Amino acid sequence: MLRLIPLGGLGEIGLNMMVVECGEDRLVIDAGLMFPEDYMLGVDFAIPDTAYLRAAGGRLLGVILTHAHEDHIGALPFLLREAAVPVFGTGFTLGMAAQRLAEFETAATADFQRVEPGRPLALGPFRIDFLPVGHSVIDGVGLAIDTPEGLVVHTGDFKLSPVAEGGGTDTQAFARLGERGVLALLSDSTNVEREGWSLPDERIRENFARIFRDSLGRIIVALFASNIARIQMIVDLARRAGRKVVISGRNIEASAEVARSLGRLVIPHGTELSLELVPDWDEQELVVITTGSQGEPMSAIARMAAGTHKQLRIRPGDTVVLSSKFIPGNERAIAKIIDNLYRRGAEVVYEKISEIHASGHAYREELREMIRLTRPAHFVPVHGEYRHLVLHARLAREAGVPPERVLLAENGEVIEFAGGRGRLAGRVPTGRLLVDGKGVGDVGRAVLKERRLLSEEGVVAVTMALDEETGIVTYGPEIVSRGVVFETATGHLLQDAHCVVLEVVEEIPPGTPQRVERLRQRIQGALREYFYFTIGRRPVILPFIMEM
Amino acid sequence: MLRLIPLGGLGEIGLNMMVVECGEDRLVIDAGLMFPEDYMLGVDFAIPDTAYLRAAGGRLLGVILTHAHEDHIGALPFLLREAAVPVFGTGFTLGMAAQRLAEFETAATADFQRVEPGRPLALGPFRIDFLPVGHSVIDGVGLAIDTPEGLVVHTGDFKLSPVAEGGGTDTQAFARLGERGVLALLSDSTNVEREGWSLPDERIRENFARIFRDSLGRIIVALFASNIARIQMIVDLARRAGRKVVISGRNIEASAEVARSLGRLVIPHGTELSLELVPDWDEQELVVITTGSQGEPMSAIARMAAGTHKQLRIRPGDTVVLSSKFIPGNERAIAKIIDNLYRRGAEVVYEKISEIHASGHAYREELREMIRLTRPAHFVPVHGEYRHLVLHARLAREAGVPPERVLLAENGEVIEFAGGRGRLAGRVPTGRLLVDGKGVGDVGRAVLKERRLLSEEGVVAVTMALDEETGIVTYGPEIVSRGVVFETATGHLLQDAHCVVLEVVEEIPPGTPQRVERLRQRIQGALREYFYFTIGRRPVILPFIMEM
Repeated sequence: MLRLIPLGGLGEIGLNMMVVECGEDRLVIDAGLMFPEDYMLGVDFAIPDTAYLRAAGGRLLGVILTHAHEDHIGALPFLLREAAVPVFGTGFTLGMAAQRLAEFETAATADFQRVEPGRPLALGPFRIDFLPVGHSVIDGVGLAIDTPEGLVVHTGDFKLSPVAEGGGTDTQAFARLGERGVLALLSDSTNVEREGWSLPDERIRENFARIFRDSLGRIIVALFASNIARIQMIVDLARRAGRKVVISGRNIEASAEVARSLGRLVIPHGTELSLELVPDWDEQELVVITTGSQGEPMSAIARMAAGTHKQLRIRPGDTVVLSSKFIPGNERAIAKIIDNLYRRGAEVVYEKISEIHASGHAYREELREMIRLTRPAHFVPVHGEYRHLVLHARLAREAGVPPERVLLAENGEVIEFAGGRGRLAGRVPTGRLLVDGKGVGDVGRAVLKERRLLSEEGVVAVTMALDEETGIVTYGPEIVSRGVVFETATGHLLQDAHCVVLEVVEEIPPGTPQRVERLRQRIQGALREYFYFTIGRRPVILPFIMEM
Repeated sequence: MLRLIPLGGLGEIGLNMMVVECGEDRLVIDAGLMFPEDYMLGVDFAIPDTAYLRAAGGRLLGVILTHAHEDHIGALPFLLREAAVPVFGTGFTLGMAAQRLAEFETAATADFQRVEPGRPLALGPFRIDFLPVGHSVIDGVGLAIDTPEGLVVHTGDFKLSPVAEGGGTDTQAFARLGERGVLALLSDSTNVEREGWSLPDERIRENFARIFRDSLGRIIVALFASNIARIQMIVDLARRAGRKVVISGRNIEASAEVARSLGRLVIPHGTELSLELVPDWDEQELVVITTGSQGEPMSAIARMAAGTHKQLRIRPGDTVVLSSKFIPGNERAIAKIIDNLYRRGAEVVYEKISEIHASGHAYREELREMIRLTRPAHFVPVHGEYRHLVLHARLAREAGVPPERVLLAENGEVIEFAGGRGRLAGRVPTGRLLVDGKGVGDVGRAVLKERRLLSEEGVVAVTMALDEETGIVTYGPEIVSRGVVFETATGHLLQDAHCVVLEVVEEIPPGTPQRVERLRQRIQGALREYFYFTIGRRPVILPFIMEM
């Protein structure tokens, strides 16, 4: 019996993790993080809860990484802390994973094993083939997993439209799997809402070539640090245009270094320039490649837009290209940067007004083609929010997969295969653990609710001391607020709050049973009412009453 | 001399307010609010700072409202509190404005004067003609303002592609202005990033007609409460399909009531049904029109998706249509609702997968056409973030307005016309006042920063009493946290924090000069370090130390 158990990524974008299980033998595909949603105040990111793996015991044979994006490798340090198992991936993927581990000081313990398309991996009852797939990162692979119950194909993140540098999806390899017979296809649902085919990278190159042709000043390109193929594209265009290339930014320098060490990024001698030389270099002979295309406030692009970047001051004649998708939630930060770049006189090229980015995820016709190539007996949509999974399941039915063999599962739902037939078979516990600073999972619903209240209303703390015997106020009330109102307005408001507290003290005279506790509750209530009545807000009230 | 002074809307979406000034005579065009940006934690909305109007003195002749959207009328209650001037607008616009005033209990003081296209208004040195414009709300107008310096045309929010109910833009009227000679055109920049023409409403009707044809169960449509033309479209389709209409939701019932009283929304007798009858009504004979298309958490649609709506439980067979644009910042909330509707088995139709909404703002070719029609001597892009203004200014130059007569101004920049020539002439103070509960302007940069810190890191309050003579700790330290860590984890963490505080007390012995103040500072520092070291977070520390 074969079981596929999604621990993340089926019901959200990110957090990707799939368990493949035969008896006591288990594989994990990907260990991804998820960037915080709006309600996860102060949280760095979320990772999948792997309680199931801990409880299951048995043999965890290893983790297989499909590609180097953080929503597929970002949770690796946490998984390896729990189980020191081998990690399998292609060269660039492992290079980036090693960097991720180093960030969390867990590199030393990792057993990395490099894999390659065409070199199958035998692991317990499984035999895994790695298939090249085109995506917005190099060295991505899909997986063909031979199991005792049949062949399971996992696309990873992929697209079929042509990508740069000849790194596209090996459709023939997928077609050959189809001929062998595929028990189940697990396919990337991210872009199922988009009709047709995704943009070929060639179009992006043409548009960049036009920018290089037309631009008389410096060209500054912001993109995702891991997008090596696009960096190479820009380097090639720069060389042809006789421009020097500056690669600037911690993350992008690191990922470029990994790619160069593997021979996947080639910057000819004499083409690269150090950032320090930018101020004095001829404008027409310069391209700066950097990050910040998502509006990250501390990024080089944000600092250039704000005029606080040391080496590079944006001026009329500069062309700034934001070469990436605007991820929902980041639009306002990105818009602010674009506005400020315009204010400084730069020409700005961005997704909305020019095709300078191509999605790395298959559109509807590509998804249909993947089903046509692999002709699976069962179909499982993966990597998407629930609506993406629903729409992808429908598309599979349209494409000819019998409805009862389209298995729409969410995180934790067990997909079981026996005798060539698949079905949903119960649930295992799953969840999202929030990572905040050094804490993993210690920020949950209650803490987030407190943070939300604090963020919207602020906090008022009241301290007061009472004489134990007479019950007379011997100190305070001292009242301090944060995040409630502007200081000059506070004076008067807090002075009146002072009277409100003293009125409560009079209402509950010395000798009242459980006086301190009753005072605490009444002060909280009275101040809440007072602030709501006067300013229409409900700050969090923290009363401290000491009897001594 | 004529001066145009933008107090809001030139540099942001929303907050629209433009002063038109001739000597001591002033008009205000629109008084709009702006919905809070991400950083405006806990804020309800922002309004333009009208300090300039207060300082300018002179005669404020009135406020002219171009249409009923909140980004054009939402700040009216605040403006009228400062200056009880007449308010001019068309029927529906005034009806909605009256409701807005009622929310803020300022209705009684308002002097509303209804205007109409074809009936010019004389106001001091100004003569104002109202021109019908098509937009996503009925009764919208553009303005042709005759001034001593020449004719100023303000488009309001508009589109040229055909709208439903024959309520489109009167292009001939604009062309006639062009023949008379336009000194300056002020035109809506919102959609300048979009190529071509906006979708005609007819396409929306066709897609709705298809939904009515194909749907076997209930149809539930969520849209903006003020979109009366679309409500009428759905009512008409419902009648033809033999379905009853339920209009549900406080805002939409109110705006429908305004429109009905003006004869602008016609729901034939017997077509409407009350919400209470929904549970028992035949599914195929029902259309529910409601709000919540932006994912508002307390909206009817959100409650239906969550399964907490009293009269309406979503079930397989239902079709839910979200008939509006997804405004950036709301996407995640909307996506959650879509996911939950799918989980309950509904069919969901939304912007990304079907054309069921048309923008109310002109696309590039429409903007070009407006310039062609009015042939202005000067061009001022309005209503947009800075990049929109820049792109619209460029488009005007492409369309033949001489570059030196394209006046790109931001909020507060004075646009001066004398002798037929316009120029930028200095600045007046402007700003955004944040409204939070009953407070206007008492939440500023400092308070928002405190809220941000509280929201990301939480708060820790420490209370301790010292004997005034011996310096010995007589109470505490008592430590309480909110929004920092989960309670079960807190116990141990706060116990150790206790020791940290006591160590500081030992370090600064009794008799140290300014001991309390030094203790306060050191405790703050030591706890900050302690929490950062142990959990990687920096909560706000509030120390209370009393000597008694």
